[in-house]
Amino acid sequence: MLRIGDRVKKIFSLLGEDIDCIISIKRSSPNPTFSYITGLVKGFFEGSIAICKREDKRVKLITSGLDKVEKDYIDVFIAKDQKKIKDELKKLVKDCSVIGFDAKYTSFYDYKLIKKWAGEKKLRDISKGMLLSRLTKDDHEIKMIKRACKISEKVFEELLNKLKEGISEKGIASQIDLLVKEYGGDETAFKSIVAFGKNSAVPHHIPGNKKLRRNEIVLLDFGARYEGYVSDITRSFVYGRANDRVRRMFEIVLEAQEAGRRVIREGTRFETVHKRIFEFIEKTAFRGKFIHSSGHTIGLEVHDGFSLVNGVKERFSNGVTFTIEPGIYLKSVGGIRIEDDFVFLNGRVRKLTHAPTFLEI
Amino acid sequence: MLRIGDRVKKIFSLLGEDIDCIISIKRSSPNPTFSYITGLVKGFFEGSIAICKREDKRVKLITSGLDKVEKDYIDVFIAKDQKKIKDELKKLVKDCSVIGFDAKYTSFYDYKLIKKWAGEKKLRDISKGMLLSRLTKDDHEIKMIKRACKISEKVFEELLNKLKEGISEKGIASQIDLLVKEYGGDETAFKSIVAFGKNSAVPHHIPGNKKLRRNEIVLLDFGARYEGYVSDITRSFVYGRANDRVRRMFEIVLEAQEAGRRVIREGTRFETVHKRIFEFIEKTAFRGKFIHSSGHTIGLEVHDGFSLVNGVKERFSNGVTFTIEPGIYLKSVGGIRIEDDFVFLNGRVRKLTHAPTFLEI
Repeated sequence: MLRIGDRVKKIFSLLGEDIDCIISIKRSSPNPTFSYITGLVKGFFEGSIAICKREDKRVKLITSGLDKVEKDYIDVFIAKDQKKIKDELKKLVKDCSVIGFDAKYTSFYDYKLIKKWAGEKKLRDISKGMLLSRLTKDDHEIKMIKRACKISEKVFEELLNKLKEGISEKGIASQIDLLVKEYGGDETAFKSIVAFGKNSAVPHHIPGNKKLRRNEIVLLDFGARYEGYVSDITRSFVYGRANDRVRRMFEIVLEAQEAGRRVIREGTRFETVHKRIFEFIEKTAFRGKFIHSSGHTIGLEVHDGFSLVNGVKERFSNGVTFTIEPGIYLKSVGGIRIEDDFVFLNGRVRKLTHAPTFLEI
Repeated sequence: MLRIGDRVKKIFSLLGEDIDCIISIKRSSPNPTFSYITGLVKGFFEGSIAICKREDKRVKLITSGLDKVEKDYIDVFIAKDQKKIKDELKKLVKDCSVIGFDAKYTSFYDYKLIKKWAGEKKLRDISKGMLLSRLTKDDHEIKMIKRACKISEKVFEELLNKLKEGISEKGIASQIDLLVKEYGGDETAFKSIVAFGKNSAVPHHIPGNKKLRRNEIVLLDFGARYEGYVSDITRSFVYGRANDRVRRMFEIVLEAQEAGRRVIREGTRFETVHKRIFEFIEKTAFRGKFIHSSGHTIGLEVHDGFSLVNGVKERFSNGVTFTIEPGIYLKSVGGIRIEDDFVFLNGRVRKLTHAPTFLEI
């Protein structure tokens, strides 16, 4: 169960001591800061404003009343027009003098709005602290991510039965949507990537009407969202027989993933994993064909704040959940990417996605 | 077909004359400004930057290369790290002196980034002009919205066959996802609202495990997205026999929708429709039970910039696409909401959603 008091304490421990309150406005897009400070991971809540204060175990929510709020730690204030919203907000932050807002999830428009409401009060960007708080998952979060991973596994195994000559990329993508829900997920974590044949050479290929033929590469990159938290898995294999080049790509990507995983210790920097994987692939015949980061943290977002790529100095520590996803892309052949989810816990890396990895089916 | 040159011309005609260029950054969330100025309505494009200039019929895109760009009017610049992105951007906006950015879809963080990149150049918020440009749809946009409406209609008719005692709200929501794709949609326009019985009294109910029983209200609020553009439809009816109260709610909501529709002329203000509908319902036994706006514009977003609600002074004019959706909500009974999509074209309102409206099934 989510312990909101502990979470608020953790967040404020990572912010400047002068910040005594956080304001987050939910618009139509997902807002992980809003979700994180309220625990509200479902529902629209368009135009709702969350307020969370240092030393307060309860969260305040100014909202339109159109969404049901099923959290006993939230005090709800119904306000339907801008004037009432402003009045409620002013009352709620009366005793605060420095207000934190998340610059990454606050539009410039909303920043101006908060500034107007805040009057003399000071505003501070808390985006760095929020990402750091979200970086190390608590027990509740790890449990949700594990469930999301389990769902992806089951979906993947079921998908293998659906693959047949003539089925389209779009057809498989629809199946993923359906299966994620059938296995208890809220929805897919992101728009699934389903690529057949040479289409797999485009890392973010949009599923189209291309139909599966024998001996073609199948690349599936998808995830499940469970109670707000995501999994993210990629499998690439040949539907039929792989030629030697694809076999080599597959072996190298798999070895690269393992090589990356093996460098991770308590305190290892995120960029170190990428350097290891990048160097590993550069030394092969596929030099220059690994063209993206080696992975990313996962949580409320699929890209949950940090990538495993050059320049990212954050370090592995207890509760960090992440993916490792090397890939090799050849325009004339296709792409092979393998992605699994992991958690760094009690000093070691544990794999969370146990879907089988194979070259041919 | 989308004529990007005409669109760029239209946008700039609604902006201050000093603005000579627009910058929009795509992050993980949908960014309608990015989509509108590039025509890119699918794909991730995370971290990509679109630049569009006055008097230029081509759009520039700085991107990672992970997504395929299939528009012949876009010049693509591949840049993988912050330094290269900055260098490309500086080159591309060298001849501009006032840069427009959309404050509603630019985070405070990205605003600071653009400001840093822009150096001495001036930045201007163009959010108002962008919304006004998007408000009146061109032929291409109306065509896409019509297709999205048609898909919703077909999905609704097919859904009626799926309704049976014992099926869950979640089960129906999954069916909507699947059917939208089966009928050619990209995806559902938003998380479908499926509410049985008293759950329908919560306007934004989240589909749960509740199972359908005879003589309960069924409320379905969903839409399709087609090539980026949405439809949004709501039907409420009783699965079995309606009692007199529900019958009365249904009749009043239906009449209210028609009353709202009938006030619309060229130049009618959006708030006028709401006032008419609100007053209509206030005069009945259900006074105080209509608790939201009377509708909203639709387009690249479900709430595409403007609501039909008090205080919205924008006016109906050629190409405005919108919904009218009155509702009555009684906690102890449930809710009835009816929503259709319309376009104001050549001086009159045309209905775009032709799904049947009935009280009992």
